[in-house]
Amino acid sequence: MVSLPQDVTIKEVGPRDGLQNEKTLIDTEAKISLINQLSESGLSYIELTSFVHPKWIPQLKDAVEVAKGIDRKNDLTYAALVPNLKGLERAIEADVDEVSIFMSASETHNQKNINKSIDETYPVLQEVVDGAKQEGKSVRGYISTVFGCPYEGKIDVNQVMSVCDNLFSMGIDELSIGDTIGVANPVQVHNVLSSMKERFDQNHLALHFHDTRGMALANTYVALEHGFRTFDGSLGGLGGCPYAKGASGNVATDDLVHMLTEMGIETGVNLDKLTNTGLAIEKHLDKPLPSKQMELARRM
Amino acid sequence: MVSLPQDVTIKEVGPRDGLQNEKTLIDTEAKISLINQLSESGLSYIELTSFVHPKWIPQLKDAVEVAKGIDRKNDLTYAALVPNLKGLERAIEADVDEVSIFMSASETHNQKNINKSIDETYPVLQEVVDGAKQEGKSVRGYISTVFGCPYEGKIDVNQVMSVCDNLFSMGIDELSIGDTIGVANPVQVHNVLSSMKERFDQNHLALHFHDTRGMALANTYVALEHGFRTFDGSLGGLGGCPYAKGASGNVATDDLVHMLTEMGIETGVNLDKLTNTGLAIEKHLDKPLPSKQMELARRM
Repeated sequence: MVSLPQDVTIKEVGPRDGLQNEKTLIDTEAKISLINQLSESGLSYIELTSFVHPKWIPQLKDAVEVAKGIDRKNDLTYAALVPNLKGLERAIEADVDEVSIFMSASETHNQKNINKSIDETYPVLQEVVDGAKQEGKSVRGYISTVFGCPYEGKIDVNQVMSVCDNLFSMGIDELSIGDTIGVANPVQVHNVLSSMKERFDQNHLALHFHDTRGMALANTYVALEHGFRTFDGSLGGLGGCPYAKGASGNVATDDLVHMLTEMGIETGVNLDKLTNTGLAIEKHLDKPLPSKQMELARRM
Repeated sequence: MVSLPQDVTIKEVGPRDGLQNEKTLIDTEAKISLINQLSESGLSYIELTSFVHPKWIPQLKDAVEVAKGIDRKNDLTYAALVPNLKGLERAIEADVDEVSIFMSASETHNQKNINKSIDETYPVLQEVVDGAKQEGKSVRGYISTVFGCPYEGKIDVNQVMSVCDNLFSMGIDELSIGDTIGVANPVQVHNVLSSMKERFDQNHLALHFHDTRGMALANTYVALEHGFRTFDGSLGGLGGCPYAKGASGNVATDDLVHMLTEMGIETGVNLDKLTNTGLAIEKHLDKPLPSKQMELARRM
């Protein structure tokens, strides 16, 4: 017998990481409806939006309206991405439960993404973490380009570890390890996660895979073999890859839930409700959602 | 360290299993050009066509012309599917190196597929095996619906084993274990392959995964963990799923080669040559090839 976790937590990032990478602007009502439907699917965590300046991500300029407009469920954590204190103010106004901060493992990617070096970014993030904690919010960190960078290629695992160390030292509650451009392969995941487990408490680590090269579910399986129990997904593969237009981005929550369920791993998520939610939001997009479960759902 | 095989053999089934499931009829010249390009990509095995009666598969009615028209390379095995003695005659006329026979693990699927029960099929296959052997041809068996059947659902592993036993008793040289409708999950693959390894010599077993639910590469990884070293693929995912129009079928050879190469496993296959071959055949189809590597190649 393979020894895998009996249950897993899925964190839905579609309304944020997905929609911020969709060309089409979705109206506020459709976003609210999307999140309300996701809330009814059995998910325990939804990242609602991003409080980044609308100049950078116009797709999410209605962040406060969305967060205020949804029907909240008590057993669900509603999170949002926050880049700085200005964003934190809006996130607090919108009353999110958890604040997410982000940092790249790659110096060049961090610079291109937020126009700051990694070292210059830490103090900005520390302010956000401290401010969020003062308001009683939990904080999630994202570390991107862990398995490869569009500018630097492979990132040295020691460099990755050092950024992780610094993020945990800031007081974050969970760190999501991101394969931003979908280059991670199962052997690499095995190696990186082996190192991660040695240094950090596995219960505070999540995996954020992209399916750009079709390896997200294989990588997920390897992480399960290592006992990891928290995985990010985006409904239907919403979003695509920011570095390869037309290619897949975030692993689809529905494909993830399907595989886990088939393997006998409990997620608490109802797959039919997920794909029905996918069919609804798809009407607002310029192309069909790319996941396998959505391909099958459209034929029903 | 994970212990995986150092090298793997990829068997390209696109010109047969792929094209027989494409709606578009491809002309003979384009098929010959496809196979010649595949021959130049470093593959050591190509299944060229099927000598099934053209009434059943009009897509491959030019089987003899294709097999006779290609440029053969000495270090490559050219195979073809053969359902009966009439087909074997044509395969011998076309001078293929290896003959493939097929059988379903599911009684209902076998009945619907070839209008015979499993027991009625054995004598027909035995004639083909004997005839092929007399001509000095090696024989490959396919067993389909091993992990699930569109009519019967899950197939009992003892039923699968019994069909495998009978096929090996006929004198076949290799057996390809097929997930015909793409329902296998990694835990199931682990369990089935554990049983298979106990009963049969692993060196005579190949894996034939479909990617209908996105699990083909995860399943491949599990098979590699078990030491399996032969995998079937279809260029670009050519073919799609015969039981779910618009959904994915055979795992794409290019996605398979990409993952294996990235993990440091030798395939001998040049990925760029594969995707260029995909771009060429795609012009003859009514839709883009669905693989991830083709998605990326189209952007270059």
